[in-house]
Order: sequence, then C-alpha cells, then structure tokens
Amino acid sequence: MKLMEDRILREGRVLSGNILKVGSFLNQQMDIELFEKMADEFWRLFGDCGVTKILTIEASGIGIACITGQRFKCPVVFAKKNRSSNVSGDVFSSRVHSYTHNKDYDIIVPKEYLNTSDRVLIIDDFLANGTALNGLIGIVRASGACIVGAGIAIEKAFQPGGDMIRKQGIRVESLARIKSMSESDGIEFC
Amino acid sequence: MKLMEDRILREGRVLSGNILKVGSFLNQQMDIELFEKMADEFWRLFGDCGVTKILTIEASGIGIACITGQRFKCPVVFAKKNRSSNVSGDVFSSRVHSYTHNKDYDIIVPKEYLNTSDRVLIIDDFLANGTALNGLIGIVRASGACIVGAGIAIEKAFQPGGDMIRKQGIRVESLARIKSMSESDGIEFC
Repeated sequence: MKLMEDRILREGRVLSGNILKVGSFLNQQMDIELFEKMADEFWRLFGDCGVTKILTIEASGIGIACITGQRFKCPVVFAKKNRSSNVSGDVFSSRVHSYTHNKDYDIIVPKEYLNTSDRVLIIDDFLANGTALNGLIGIVRASGACIVGAGIAIEKAFQPGGDMIRKQGIRVESLARIKSMSESDGIEFC
Repeated sequence: MKLMEDRILREGRVLSGNILKVGSFLNQQMDIELFEKMADEFWRLFGDCGVTKILTIEASGIGIACITGQRFKCPVVFAKKNRSSNVSGDVFSSRVHSYTHNKDYDIIVPKEYLNTSDRVLIIDDFLANGTALNGLIGIVRASGACIVGAGIAIEKAFQPGGDMIRKQGIRVESLARIKSMSESDGIEFC
C-alpha cells in the first residue's frame, strides 16, 4: 500500500535495536483518515471471506481494528495482556514471549467472545518475530473458530514472523513490508 | 442517550465492589455500530467547539476515541500507563491513583503530540472516582492546550468524579449516568 509506505518514509524513524518509530500516525497518535484507507484495503483483501469477528491485541492494534470493524460490520475483540500470574478458566489464553522486555506473559480473551461459528480476521499494527500474532492464532484455535487470515499494518519482513505464520498455512496480508532498515541507510520495502 | 442506557440494562452486569461489567459491547468486545451512534452524540454535543485533537487513555478508551475521531476529522492520541518508575523529559506525565489495584502509576503522552494551539476533547469509557480523567486533564494543562471538555460513555454518578471535575469548570458530558446500582436492585439512571 503506497500510502502507508510513503507515510513510513516521511514520518518513521529507525532507532537502534530494529525499532521503527511510527508513533506520530500509527501508535500513540493515530491518523484516523489513514486508518480508513487501511480499512478499505483490508476490506478489499478479506471482504469476501465472511468475517464475523475481528481480533486484535491491546493497545496499539485497537484503533486500526475498530475502523476496520466498521467496514466489516462486525464486533471487534481485543486480547488483554495479563500481567498477573493466574489465568481463570473462563478465558482462552496463550503464552507470548516479549523480545522487547525479554519475558513471557499471557494474553487472554473471555470465552464468551469467540465461538466455533466465528470466522476471525486478526488485525495488528506490527509483525516482526510473530510472537503476538502466534499467540492470537493460538487463542482462535483454542476457541474452535476459523481463522480467515491476518491483516498487518507494517511487517518487518527481515524478521522471521511473517514466514513462520505463512508456513502454518495462514494468509497474512501486510500493508507495508520492510525488506531492510537502518539508521544510516534508511528504509527499503519488499 | 437512551440507546446506551438500554444496552447497559440488557447486557451490563453489576458485580460486588461497584463494578459494572459491560465487556460484551464497550470494553473487551466492542460494538462498532454502537460506537458510531456514540460518536454522533459526541459530535452533536462538541461539534461546534473547534476540536483539533482527541485524547484518551489505553486500552478501553481507544476504540470509542477512534470512531469519535472520524466524526471530528482529527487525530486521536492515547495516554500510556507507565509501569516503570522513570519518566523521561520528553513526555507530559500525570500521576494517577488506581482504586482497583490500590496503587499509583504515571500516565504519559509524548510532548510532540500536544501543543498550545490544540483544542482537546477527552474521551473515555468510564467516569467514577475521576482519577484517570483528572490525570488526562493534568496532561492537557501541562501542554498548554485548551480543554474543550470530556465525553464519557458511562458515568457512575454516585461516585465523586463527575462532580469534582465539573467543579473545576470543565464541561463533562456522559452518555449514560448511573444514579445507583446493586446486584439485588439492578441499575437506575439519573
């Protein structure tokens, strides 16, 4: 999606440790007009898949997922990151490793919000190592619902997450796929 | 807003400790069609106030704020809850007391996302003791921006937050105001 690539080139900042800062339009500050264009594109890609529910993860995925949910006219559910150690029986949960904080945590969704008749589109802002997306896939599988695919804003294609998820047979569509990035040489797309 | 009151009566569950569970349509699962009606109402109330930015707090406020941001055609910023102890100099921060977890935490917004020419509408899902809203107000004040007001989905009017904030001269508009609620007697609106 050229609009997304252009915006990344204009406002994204590459920091050390493979971090891409896009907080001015995608994360802590959200450009809703851009989100509408992203939602249009997700609708073009997945609009004929009979999606009944959109699943994302707090916090940065929620805005994109809600605007996308408008197009699909379906509810949006977000997984919570559970920082306490105990997970109750009335939730689907999945263990996720955070490379940023180098620790594991659980993500949880109450069982009542996903069921076997659901066709789920997963939406998230970033795909890098794929740990969060893998966790969301685990939750959908545990619920018995069908995974239609994953719509991602920015994929760091030089990290292994995208390949790993696609090898599981899951359709992953990313609006911008970064081939390489560095503080000195800038950003190159696939 | 009758639609909101009806929905609370139909799906809300009152739990002990003054907790109202509305996770099926307002929090962890989000009814985007309802959010659109809420956004229409916020637009009716604040549409002539020259809003340039919407501010909310992660995570449950983000969805409502983004759909509202569509109506106002302005960016949406969310404050992050900072769990680490140090706050850097390039953010506006405010100390918030959580009654749920009985501890203090900081909420933060990077300075680049709020400036003196902004006219800010604060959006959040709940108003009870007013600690989160007060924190958001503190951040807007620190930035030098103008606070247009606060749009709240559900106000627990039997708790002191709403009165406290209105006494500061800040316009607070809540789509549903709960006068009383209990497990045995149900929910009564103002």
